[in-house]
Amino acid sequence: MREAFHGELAQLGEQLDAMCGLAAEAMRRATQALLDTDLALAERVVADDDELDRHRGACEDHAQKLLALQAPVAGDLRTILAALYCAEIIERMGDLAAHIAATVRFNHPEPAIPPSLRDLFATLGQRAGDMAIHLRGLISGFSPDGFAEMDRLDDAVDALHAEVMATVTGTDWSDGVRTATNVALLARFYERFADQAVSAARRLDFATTGTLPN
Amino acid sequence: MREAFHGELAQLGEQLDAMCGLAAEAMRRATQALLDTDLALAERVVADDDELDRHRGACEDHAQKLLALQAPVAGDLRTILAALYCAEIIERMGDLAAHIAATVRFNHPEPAIPPSLRDLFATLGQRAGDMAIHLRGLISGFSPDGFAEMDRLDDAVDALHAEVMATVTGTDWSDGVRTATNVALLARFYERFADQAVSAARRLDFATTGTLPN
Repeated sequence: MREAFHGELAQLGEQLDAMCGLAAEAMRRATQALLDTDLALAERVVADDDELDRHRGACEDHAQKLLALQAPVAGDLRTILAALYCAEIIERMGDLAAHIAATVRFNHPEPAIPPSLRDLFATLGQRAGDMAIHLRGLISGFSPDGFAEMDRLDDAVDALHAEVMATVTGTDWSDGVRTATNVALLARFYERFADQAVSAARRLDFATTGTLPN
Repeated sequence: MREAFHGELAQLGEQLDAMCGLAAEAMRRATQALLDTDLALAERVVADDDELDRHRGACEDHAQKLLALQAPVAGDLRTILAALYCAEIIERMGDLAAHIAATVRFNHPEPAIPPSLRDLFATLGQRAGDMAIHLRGLISGFSPDGFAEMDRLDDAVDALHAEVMATVTGTDWSDGVRTATNVALLARFYERFADQAVSAARRLDFATTGTLPN
């Protein structure tokens, strides 16, 4: 019985692991679509988001069955609750990647960002994707220094976000209002994606330590 | 035992109810601070957000104790899980109100929005606040037509958001890039606040019907 339960918990972990992989891939593709003004790729990211939503539903179903049938306590209960939170958070990461892709689609055939910001957004996409991959490592339990590394990556994303916003609102900006609003919203999507990864990591930390996240 | 359990569930509902009241008040004050460029009020909204965070922590603690001690199933389990989700969502609604207030503070003594958009933002704040109040009614169970009304309010917020974005990106915009980025981000905070209220309502619906939300 107990072994079967831990098998179920491991399966829940695998579901979250797969969700993280999808979120990381969505972020990678959305950023590529943004950099290349690639309509087909942007549409694919938006369409693929449904898959992540289905995974979230399956994860919830599974977690709720475990709660109802096994009535877990202490660490096991915290693990299942953390999985429930993480499923919701990773789905939201997918939503944010889809928002980036939808912005590309909305502006097509015009690029959503000016050439001067391409490098910054490429780096933002890289760091945000790294955070999803890193979260995957935390879920699999293969990442002992994981929480410190997650904070470091989040700081990098925050600094890039601040740099983008300083550029947009600076006196040298010459790309017009519409592009400025695109850029401000896009930068926020990346920043939020990173924040969500941090939230998920804190939930996992709570599952291990029993200390509620800030 | 069973009666004591339902007393505990009712107490969880009261905690959520109080959180909704705080989120509605935060939205009302943040909007007032935005319309009046009121630094003191904006700072109060940002500072008060801690209280909502504490409430969320207390709600989670309570819900987890109920799960561990009572091992609820079926409808009771769904109710507790919905309460956990709602606590997190309402905390996020408070965060979004605090983001509005922080934008006011960041731009002070300049107003964050131009006079031409005051009426639109006043209405956005009103509708968003209505949604938090309405969510409170759903939590208390006093709102039989609640879900349809919530969708109606959300549609109104989406339409206002679209109107703001059309104004900012239109050819008549003459308030500059910095104000445009403020306005785009602020409009998004209101839209997200409304989306969160809809998410919480769906979670409550799920608790009643057992059908997972979309």
